Amino acid sequence: MNAEFINPFISALLNVLQTMAQTELTPGKPKRKHDETALGDVSGLIGMVGPQLKGSLSISFEQNLACEIMHRMLGEKPTEINSDITDMVGEITNMICGGAKLELANKGYEFDMATPLVVSGPKHTINHQVDGQKMIMPFHSDDGLAYMEISFDKVK
Amino acid sequence: MNAEFINPFISALLNVLQTMAQTELTPGKPKRKHDETALGDVSGLIGMVGPQLKGSLSISFEQNLACEIMHRMLGEKPTEINSDITDMVGEITNMICGGAKLELANKGYEFDMATPLVVSGPKHTINHQVDGQKMIMPFHSDDGLAYMEISFDKVK
Repeated sequence: MNAEFINPFISALLNVLQTMAQTELTPGKPKRKHDETALGDVSGLIGMVGPQLKGSLSISFEQNLACEIMHRMLGEKPTEINSDITDMVGEITNMICGGAKLELANKGYEFDMATPLVVSGPKHTINHQVDGQKMIMPFHSDDGLAYMEISFDKVK
Repeated sequence: MNAEFINPFISALLNVLQTMAQTELTPGKPKRKHDETALGDVSGLIGMVGPQLKGSLSISFEQNLACEIMHRMLGEKPTEINSDITDMVGEITNMICGGAKLELANKGYEFDMATPLVVSGPKHTINHQVDGQKMIMPFHSDDGLAYMEISFDKVK
């Protein structure tokens, strides 16, 4: 998986959080995933299916960061993950994947998106089950960590 | 979402666990999801995308049931969720969705499957973010509970 493929997801994440919640994330270095694991308290997941490839995207947030994003969007800061936050994380996941999909379609990579899923639970981990490469990227902010993970299989 | 659509997923789940792990599950009554929430310790998730519909499938297992399924498949019983179990849950999820896909294709419902994701973490919850219906089904066994949840949006 090369930078041409990953960068649209990174820029969509930065752009969505900047635009919707005035939240600046600082991207860490993307890594091929071996031992590094994203520990999140709330995560948005979405499947992608296209003629050339299929895969999955996950975005995990620490609880405090998720609550702070909600605070900046709606003016109220929840003290824990609630249904407003899971809906917001689902919507953010959809927007990020949709933004990357548009940019990748312009480069000749077409895929359709499944419906998003949101997982809640303290310090859960997510395992992308693909034969192909997995990339994991940490994002730092003053309010906590986020992780984005992308994986793709080539369609035989 | 009618029985014609749900039954292939139920029979695929029962069949896969019977065949691979000699494990009998007793299906509870399917419910439209409002308040009922699947609490699982390890869950397999998969996205589905087709010309008429898109959606998601999740299958959640209590830890003891997941460990017992592994025991029956491999002869060793892990004491907690490990990478062998997450791989097994991803594979089971793939097989169930693949079985239902074949049967539904014969009825004229076509979809492609994304790659599976597996979530681990004590008592996590999963929220399917769709506008359409969500169905949740409990399955009982001597070794613990499993939940299957299916949701679909019609493609506009």
